[in-house]
Amino acid sequence: MKINLPETGQKRVVIVGGGFAGLELAKKLVKGPYQVVLLDKNNYHQFQPLLYQVATAGLEPSSIAFPLRKLFQKCPNFYFRMTEVQAIHPEKRCLTTPRGIVWYDYLVLALGAQTNFFGNAQFLAHAIPMKSISEALYLRNAILSDLEVALTTPEYERRQGLVDVVIVGGGPTGVELAGALAEMRHWILPKDYPELDASEVDIYLVQAGERLLPGMSHEAAQSALYYLQSMGVHVILGDRVIDYDGSWVCLKSGRRIYSKKVIWAAGIKGQTIQGIASTSIGPGNRICVDAFHRVKGYNDIFAIGDVALMKEDPNWPEGHPQVAQVAIQQGLNLGNNLLRQMQGKDLIPFRYIDKGSLATIGRNKAVADLPFWNTQGWIAWVLWLFVHLFALVGTKNKVFVFLNWVWNYITYDQSLRLIIRPWLRKKQGENTPSCPE
Amino acid sequence: MKINLPETGQKRVVIVGGGFAGLELAKKLVKGPYQVVLLDKNNYHQFQPLLYQVATAGLEPSSIAFPLRKLFQKCPNFYFRMTEVQAIHPEKRCLTTPRGIVWYDYLVLALGAQTNFFGNAQFLAHAIPMKSISEALYLRNAILSDLEVALTTPEYERRQGLVDVVIVGGGPTGVELAGALAEMRHWILPKDYPELDASEVDIYLVQAGERLLPGMSHEAAQSALYYLQSMGVHVILGDRVIDYDGSWVCLKSGRRIYSKKVIWAAGIKGQTIQGIASTSIGPGNRICVDAFHRVKGYNDIFAIGDVALMKEDPNWPEGHPQVAQVAIQQGLNLGNNLLRQMQGKDLIPFRYIDKGSLATIGRNKAVADLPFWNTQGWIAWVLWLFVHLFALVGTKNKVFVFLNWVWNYITYDQSLRLIIRPWLRKKQGENTPSCPE
Repeated sequence: MKINLPETGQKRVVIVGGGFAGLELAKKLVKGPYQVVLLDKNNYHQFQPLLYQVATAGLEPSSIAFPLRKLFQKCPNFYFRMTEVQAIHPEKRCLTTPRGIVWYDYLVLALGAQTNFFGNAQFLAHAIPMKSISEALYLRNAILSDLEVALTTPEYERRQGLVDVVIVGGGPTGVELAGALAEMRHWILPKDYPELDASEVDIYLVQAGERLLPGMSHEAAQSALYYLQSMGVHVILGDRVIDYDGSWVCLKSGRRIYSKKVIWAAGIKGQTIQGIASTSIGPGNRICVDAFHRVKGYNDIFAIGDVALMKEDPNWPEGHPQVAQVAIQQGLNLGNNLLRQMQGKDLIPFRYIDKGSLATIGRNKAVADLPFWNTQGWIAWVLWLFVHLFALVGTKNKVFVFLNWVWNYITYDQSLRLIIRPWLRKKQGENTPSCPE
Repeated sequence: MKINLPETGQKRVVIVGGGFAGLELAKKLVKGPYQVVLLDKNNYHQFQPLLYQVATAGLEPSSIAFPLRKLFQKCPNFYFRMTEVQAIHPEKRCLTTPRGIVWYDYLVLALGAQTNFFGNAQFLAHAIPMKSISEALYLRNAILSDLEVALTTPEYERRQGLVDVVIVGGGPTGVELAGALAEMRHWILPKDYPELDASEVDIYLVQAGERLLPGMSHEAAQSALYYLQSMGVHVILGDRVIDYDGSWVCLKSGRRIYSKKVIWAAGIKGQTIQGIASTSIGPGNRICVDAFHRVKGYNDIFAIGDVALMKEDPNWPEGHPQVAQVAIQQGLNLGNNLLRQMQGKDLIPFRYIDKGSLATIGRNKAVADLPFWNTQGWIAWVLWLFVHLFALVGTKNKVFVFLNWVWNYITYDQSLRLIIRPWLRKKQGENTPSCPE
């Protein structure tokens, strides 16, 4: 069965994935003579850099997500279909989905990345990933529920397992999450849980390398380490988590930490999709592309964003970092090229312009690597706030996130610490729903 | 095992349920010489009158929920435990929970009400209740997901089943929900789903009685009917849903409606709890109490709010309506009486003061029955807005709900149409999570 899409005579560009790359491309293409079809398994775009604030109950999901349909409300050549993609059939120029077959003239894979557990079944079974809003909400619920259970757990050891958190990976996600949890412990815990001893709550950040924030400058790494330690986070450098059974975290050094919550921020790999030749797939599941984002071995299939591996940008011979900035610029470049191609103009090879990196650790504490300037502290923090605010999709989201931040900054307290569980249909005779914990 | 609560020498009042009644009582009692223990299966208070706006993506859950701990942050004699209650043991003055045993000097049951399917297994198995935030979110996801599926469903009949909604029950919840859905169809659908024919979307409101809003005046019922019909809602009066198999709704008149979504707003019954003698339970599972909220047959157990049935208020010989106002006044009355008792003062029997009823149907359309005045239309609508705004718990919630409403009023559009699914842990080898639909 064919998915219903009108045959308008326009060339059809099918974009798989509504992340930064796919969205930027779609926004560009709808202005041109293409039929743009966007497929995503969610009906919203999510702003991943702020997921950690959803996980720590600082922001609501709706503040960092935006419905894809609403973004393209006035674009008659735009079609959204909420669906997964089962497989690509390049020889037939179509892809299959549970909703039907979609034909394409050009296919753009903006699949993004997924959590990389490096094939470890234990991590997969017990660690908590944090790459999506659903996962961030799961983590939020787990943190809050475990605090509730800890309150009625008299045994010190068992209570430790409930209140302690181990974060694996010292990149931006790990650092920002550790900082936010430390702030939660400092400002919220004594007020909300006066019966718990906040000093019993340990936050561990385990980084395999010898420094934090490997993608950033040494000053940034030093400051981040200093900030985190001053906030009481146990930063463990040069050690590696080798096993986790849901209770005990084992490090390579032999150290063991008892904790019910291990958050996995230690690595990502490209999302996979059936139908792309394995010879086109590079390290970390990334799809090899040329300087015009064309997937190796295909003429009409492109890949952009975290899933793409381009080695033809002279400054990035090993491929670009898997960050939002690259994705946005790639989406824009491909969009422009597809429009230029229609106009018979030459294509422009992609060159990434690095505008710098930012990471925030807490109130007034952030690190910034800018092209000509590295700074840490308050200025970096303000910069971080504004960069993230303006990067959010939608005016209302910008306004509401800003108001939330101002509110939190003044009151040192949010009011989002709700454990909202999915509704499960009751069986007959059952009185109250059971608590899935 | 005993749940850990300090023995302070204060009399312990255990309140089960943090709804309107329980919350009001706790707020009163923490000012007195009691140890107040609040038990709830959720860690938040939910503002039920606005659930329908969560279901129709007009408000976020966090706007109408408030964390119970945050409300009592500065009360040293207050203890919250997030848990269900398994049974009461009146002879031992304790109750059992999965977390341990809780002893009480006074026990207050503020259990609230649950959806009443009148024992029909089909309704229980297929209809969607709307008494909690989790259920409202389930409904929101169902509405939005079904619209997505409808888009790729070429067959008219099957598509009808996906887009049509049947609401059972013409009380405030049914009326407000029908109105909100009609507005969604009018303002949102053509913009978000231009490919769907909005005129194909049917909203049915089925009311067994001959009029809507049985608890309100005839003018209110007439206006509500007029408003709903003018907004294109199919209001079916004097007919009753007798069966629903998940696809076909069968009415007593023989009429059949094909719909995947039947929302059950046709009745409530008291939440039940083990350990209260069946002789103390009245019609609709309500617990019979005297004018001081004392449960029949017990000296130290009280019931307030939706679950309580008091026939000793001269103006309400059949018991009070199960609404927020009654619950709030009962919580306040019981709180005062428990404080008076400590001071050796006489207890004051409960008398309900009805301040009026309000229901909103849409923009500028509401109905209001006030003690000396009934009004419909814009004034009632403004009144409704302010009454609900001020009744919300928490300054931030008030501010954010107000801003949300202003935003929606001006733009005729919210940006909350996100289908956020719970995270399910992936199994090894699985690539993408499956869609629970």
